[in-house]
Amino acid sequence: MRVLGFDPGTAATGYGIVLFESGRLRLEGCGVWRPSSAFTLPARLEFLLQSAIRLIEQCRPAAVSVETVFAGRNVASAMKLSHARGVLLAAAAQASVPVFEYEPRLVKKALVGYGNAEKSQVRSMVLSLLARQRARVPLDAADALALAICHVHASPRVGSVRVGS
Amino acid sequence: MRVLGFDPGTAATGYGIVLFESGRLRLEGCGVWRPSSAFTLPARLEFLLQSAIRLIEQCRPAAVSVETVFAGRNVASAMKLSHARGVLLAAAAQASVPVFEYEPRLVKKALVGYGNAEKSQVRSMVLSLLARQRARVPLDAADALALAICHVHASPRVGSVRVGS
Repeated sequence: MRVLGFDPGTAATGYGIVLFESGRLRLEGCGVWRPSSAFTLPARLEFLLQSAIRLIEQCRPAAVSVETVFAGRNVASAMKLSHARGVLLAAAAQASVPVFEYEPRLVKKALVGYGNAEKSQVRSMVLSLLARQRARVPLDAADALALAICHVHASPRVGSVRVGS
Repeated sequence: MRVLGFDPGTAATGYGIVLFESGRLRLEGCGVWRPSSAFTLPARLEFLLQSAIRLIEQCRPAAVSVETVFAGRNVASAMKLSHARGVLLAAAAQASVPVFEYEPRLVKKALVGYGNAEKSQVRSMVLSLLARQRARVPLDAADALALAICHVHASPRVGSVRVGS
């Protein structure tokens, strides 16, 4: 099973692809899209849309995995993030790839073992799980990889929530 | 000048196109996109993306006009709306059409004359401005038309804010 994780943002969007086969997890690719800071918001979103469409065409994942969106303290940044998230979901749907979403607590639990883990612990675990290819994982892609790995762990158990209406 | 206004939503997205020529305002088209309620959120967004791309190709507007996004009381629905808004902005950028955004107060002021007007007053004014074609304006498209008309009124005056980064 090949899973593509996304960590959306209008300034930087991390992505990570893992392949889970015969009980082994393999890093297939990861990276960060950073549209030019001179771009307007619509241009950034379009850049993101085209990048996502291209990547999904190339890697043909069985699933896309994203974090459940929630406002938290900073509503303005959550809404900006939702713009980017919307574009990524549309790109997945265009290729008929189902999208699953996970709460941050569940991602932490799947990776580190408990839901209150620090972000840095999640990243360390991602790097150690994919140790052999460590050098190729930029920090901004680690969260996207955590989401992809979380889907591998959770699916098809409880907690795997397909993005509904 | 031809302007396309959008009133985004994941359940229903209103759109309205006006042409302003020789000091006269003409309704060129309007409608509402309602993806099937059986669709997942990603499928709704993809439906919206394709619908917007097609419409922009057909009508070739000089500008797209949207409301400034703000959270207000219902953060969850504002974030859902932001998903749809992101997709529409990407569709505009794909066709190299600039996007302008207006605060609700400014839309009300441009249409009714004061910023505290009721939503129903804005709709009445839209219908009366486009009186001859009144029968063709569904309620959900009226807000989109108000945004298109607001851009005609505001541009290039103060208050016309191109969507930045």
